[in-house]
Amino acid sequence: MTVRQLPLPDLVRECVRLGVPGVGLWREPVREYGVEAAAALVRDAGLAVTTLCRGGFFTTDGWEAENRAAIEEAAALGTDTLILVSGGLPPGSRDLPAARARIADAIGALAPYARAHGVRLAIEPLHPMYAADRCAISTLDQALAVAELFPPDEVGVVVDTYHLWWDDRAPAAVSRAGAAARIHSVQLADWTTPLPAGVLTGRGQLGTGAIDFSAWCALVADAGYDGPIEVELFNDELWARDGVEVLEETAEAFLRV
Amino acid sequence: MTVRQLPLPDLVRECVRLGVPGVGLWREPVREYGVEAAAALVRDAGLAVTTLCRGGFFTTDGWEAENRAAIEEAAALGTDTLILVSGGLPPGSRDLPAARARIADAIGALAPYARAHGVRLAIEPLHPMYAADRCAISTLDQALAVAELFPPDEVGVVVDTYHLWWDDRAPAAVSRAGAAARIHSVQLADWTTPLPAGVLTGRGQLGTGAIDFSAWCALVADAGYDGPIEVELFNDELWARDGVEVLEETAEAFLRV
Repeated sequence: MTVRQLPLPDLVRECVRLGVPGVGLWREPVREYGVEAAAALVRDAGLAVTTLCRGGFFTTDGWEAENRAAIEEAAALGTDTLILVSGGLPPGSRDLPAARARIADAIGALAPYARAHGVRLAIEPLHPMYAADRCAISTLDQALAVAELFPPDEVGVVVDTYHLWWDDRAPAAVSRAGAAARIHSVQLADWTTPLPAGVLTGRGQLGTGAIDFSAWCALVADAGYDGPIEVELFNDELWARDGVEVLEETAEAFLRV
Repeated sequence: MTVRQLPLPDLVRECVRLGVPGVGLWREPVREYGVEAAAALVRDAGLAVTTLCRGGFFTTDGWEAENRAAIEEAAALGTDTLILVSGGLPPGSRDLPAARARIADAIGALAPYARAHGVRLAIEPLHPMYAADRCAISTLDQALAVAELFPPDEVGVVVDTYHLWWDDRAPAAVSRAGAAARIHSVQLADWTTPLPAGVLTGRGQLGTGAIDFSAWCALVADAGYDGPIEVELFNDELWARDGVEVLEETAEAFLRV
């Protein structure tokens, strides 16, 4: 998504050229290219699919069929991790605890299907500014409370610096999640202000904002996480530029921070 | 601030006409009108000044003189409560814990001066989306942790629904704050999406968004709070309209929710 302007074959070619060993994919471009064709493309290049984004939106109609399809796509792509963005308040509701309960129920309903496909469900807490319309799971503590209802190889959490950086309770939650082998994905994006309208597409290039990435990377490493670290930027300015250039710049920024 | 388009004399006249018994004032319009003149205007109308907004911004240069002036103005206006918006990261810093420590130190330095003027300092936790650039105190738990370093009649907290509605830990913190007589102010605004660019001026009219106000009002009442409840909307659309009409509408919405 960081370089969504790049067609899938270009993305794969440039990752290989730059020595980027894996890539997190999003469902829409994968389905557009064809799931089997995308799987072959990435596999033949020797690239790992680190995660598939995303399942979730459990508070909207049709969630079950959508999420079963996402699990099948993850399995076909050869990734063991499906990222979940859980959904906000149902239309007309003002009841966040009820939305959270509904999310936990939906994950419980999906977990056996995911396990049967060799796919782990990774609950991503989103920044509290998305609680109403995108994800009622706003903190790592909340995500862990749901994940802990299930075995760690079935349901875990995503540690994304953009969503968690402000939270003084997050470091302890990272340690707890790591000790239980529940950190299924780590994602980096920087916090820059002012936020754009709609607050979706203002994630900053690494090193340009408020987040101390060396502290966050040390935190997840100390918690025992040794899996891939993704860079996930939604940024109108980066999307408007040449994708290869942005990918090179992002790889450099990653090493620098 | 909800009707900042109304000059102070119009605001006072309309509050009296509508039976609104008190008003929270902001420093800028008060200073423009003259502090003593504003104090006389409100006093002669029989209106209470519920709070003065705002002191704080402790992570920027010149905070001490600014905050002493704000304390003096609060005393002159006859309000016992100065709202504090504590400030974000200092320029170039990525260290939120250091910013929070600096805020606690600054409040400690100010508290005796405030007490001598009969003014309580009320720490307002702001939504986490303001942590970098406006207020490093993002949760009621964090605000309480600072307030609890001081006596409750010196330093307390603000419960503002806009900033806290998403937080599953806030209800317990409200109860704890109420039991210790540390709730110094309660403010209402609704959460509506999409957020506008800069995320400052999108606070919704009561009843138009995601927040359950009857639950929040019951929560503060159950915690023992029986002080004034302010409505504080920053909203470009409301500011562009006739101020008297917006004030009437807000008073109606307040009673309705």
